[in-house]
Amino acid sequence: MKNILLIPDSFKGTMSSEQICSIMNRAIKRHYPDTKVTSIPVADGGEGSVDAFLQALGGEKRNLTVQGPFGELMESFYGIIKDDTAVIEMASCAGLPLVGDELRPDKTTTYGVGQLMLDAAKNGCKHIIVGLGGSATNDGGCGVAAACGVVFKDKDDNAFVPTGGTMGRVASIDTSELDPALKQVTITTMCDIDNPFYGTNGAAYIFGPQKGADPEMVKVLDANLKSLAGVIQKDLDIDVQAIPGSGAAGGMGGGMAAFFSSTLQMGIETVLETVNFDSLLKDADLVLTGEGKIDGQSLRGKVVIGVSRRAKKAKVPVLAIVGDIGDDVDGAYDEGVTGIFSINRVAVEFKKAKGRAPEDMDKTIDNLMRFTKQMGL
Amino acid sequence: MKNILLIPDSFKGTMSSEQICSIMNRAIKRHYPDTKVTSIPVADGGEGSVDAFLQALGGEKRNLTVQGPFGELMESFYGIIKDDTAVIEMASCAGLPLVGDELRPDKTTTYGVGQLMLDAAKNGCKHIIVGLGGSATNDGGCGVAAACGVVFKDKDDNAFVPTGGTMGRVASIDTSELDPALKQVTITTMCDIDNPFYGTNGAAYIFGPQKGADPEMVKVLDANLKSLAGVIQKDLDIDVQAIPGSGAAGGMGGGMAAFFSSTLQMGIETVLETVNFDSLLKDADLVLTGEGKIDGQSLRGKVVIGVSRRAKKAKVPVLAIVGDIGDDVDGAYDEGVTGIFSINRVAVEFKKAKGRAPEDMDKTIDNLMRFTKQMGL
Repeated sequence: MKNILLIPDSFKGTMSSEQICSIMNRAIKRHYPDTKVTSIPVADGGEGSVDAFLQALGGEKRNLTVQGPFGELMESFYGIIKDDTAVIEMASCAGLPLVGDELRPDKTTTYGVGQLMLDAAKNGCKHIIVGLGGSATNDGGCGVAAACGVVFKDKDDNAFVPTGGTMGRVASIDTSELDPALKQVTITTMCDIDNPFYGTNGAAYIFGPQKGADPEMVKVLDANLKSLAGVIQKDLDIDVQAIPGSGAAGGMGGGMAAFFSSTLQMGIETVLETVNFDSLLKDADLVLTGEGKIDGQSLRGKVVIGVSRRAKKAKVPVLAIVGDIGDDVDGAYDEGVTGIFSINRVAVEFKKAKGRAPEDMDKTIDNLMRFTKQMGL
Repeated sequence: MKNILLIPDSFKGTMSSEQICSIMNRAIKRHYPDTKVTSIPVADGGEGSVDAFLQALGGEKRNLTVQGPFGELMESFYGIIKDDTAVIEMASCAGLPLVGDELRPDKTTTYGVGQLMLDAAKNGCKHIIVGLGGSATNDGGCGVAAACGVVFKDKDDNAFVPTGGTMGRVASIDTSELDPALKQVTITTMCDIDNPFYGTNGAAYIFGPQKGADPEMVKVLDANLKSLAGVIQKDLDIDVQAIPGSGAAGGMGGGMAAFFSSTLQMGIETVLETVNFDSLLKDADLVLTGEGKIDGQSLRGKVVIGVSRRAKKAKVPVLAIVGDIGDDVDGAYDEGVTGIFSINRVAVEFKKAKGRAPEDMDKTIDNLMRFTKQMGL
């Protein structure tokens, strides 16, 4: 084997994708010291996504002072990969860890994210990837849009920057003042959920409580999102509620689509396109991917299947290294997975297995590499 | 792959070796329908050993009325393989399940085992394999020997058949009356432990309690074994205490060595020799073996290592399919194991894993066969 690609998802709460790549790489090199190993830690749009892209592709990290969740100035960052592509994680200036105990999804804003986007566009980026995930906000993406020049006015024609608690007062939206720098830019929003903008399955009801909204506030936030959706329909002629994932990051998914014509795309698809995975596959002898648990659910757009579908077309074998193997995984083989291997080496409950995971991962890869090597691969 | 050998140990208390062979065979055939699969369930000398040999090699099962553990008449059996080799499991007429609640290692006898041996010899068998394991007895093999013509006398020169409780009265042993039919026969005793005849690490102290001996009885049984060893030394010039495994099956290991000049041999070695494993390896592309848990201990003569050492010489890859993978298994690779795969597919404690074991075994083999097949093997 001359060329191995590593593209694992994180094992949520156990090991990051970067950590898994590093463990896999070390174990492979023990048996194939001369093999080229390419690590592509998978960004899911949440915290760490910028670093994951930078690790996979190289590039530059830029620091910038922008508005934080409550409008306060703070140091944030984004990445530039492939010279002209910016990678932004919304959590970097509007994420839950930034607000500490002050959980107020009615007051928080995504404004800083718009500032990062604008900076990237003004610095010549032609593509912007925005990762949703880990948000402390529920502003329907109004903050992002306002920072970029979109004007939100109330019924008295006063412009303001809407938040979760105030966006119900939006009476008109004007996108004509959107900063020209952004007009030449394609924007992709990474979004792994498909909740709608509002309603019992929408942003406020499903994700509001974990951001600190009590039942009363959830109702207000949801009503405000619904009201905003009406204005978007009226002024921009877009049915934001009908876009799967518009409820991501407190409705920012919908805002990205409505105010920036951004595509909402599964994280893994964004990663595969960005790293030009199909081209990497041409020289690959083996792909190692994985996720915390593979099961029937995994067949719906998750990392292992996204990777395997492409590898199958390129006729490259794929090994899925996972925590648990659920039932109904036969479909995974049909999608191109060559083999599925659990890192569980002893029969212990998850609480105990978790602590052993890095070492078990190392030994599982070590064992597989011994095997493939001895089989002459 | 044209030819696969299956030679797994049982997963003690979970799956028998036969059951594992059958599951493995079925999963292999799904992906390699034309491959020749040879099943060699591993006999360990205990209950089921005769059936294991018969399944591996074909042959005939013979029924015979002999004395049971308390001298009562009972139906027992032995197997004949390769036309001239008898396989006897001592548990078939002196095993723990036969005595029910009447746990009396001071009273039970191995006499019936001798009757089986004699019958085999008189019917032309040139080799006899005797499996120890699961014994209800502690008679130092005196019963076996007495049935075959060895004469035990007390100090008053009265001949008797010694048991655990009475063998301390043995004052002389005369092997000259051993049935001539047995003199042309080589006898191999399968024995996987190396406890000595007597002492704190001997038959009575280590295994007496599980046969029902209370501390007082353990002391008596141990003293009696020590006394018997003295007479063996005096009359047969054999230091039975120095033979590793002489303490197996209530000292029957020692008795087999002393009264019949039998070799004590690890079960797996006996199986490998008997099935002519080296010759089977010549045409094999892959060996699947396994055991309930592989660990540092396994490196000492257990099934996986016994199999792997021979396969390594023949340059045939060996996959060990196991329950748990313990620490310190790197030595296993050095001994010839190509890959070690746990059947644990989810992180659950053993109590739960046990119930899933047959299905997990099936899926583990299924996965490996998909993998090897897709890799062009």
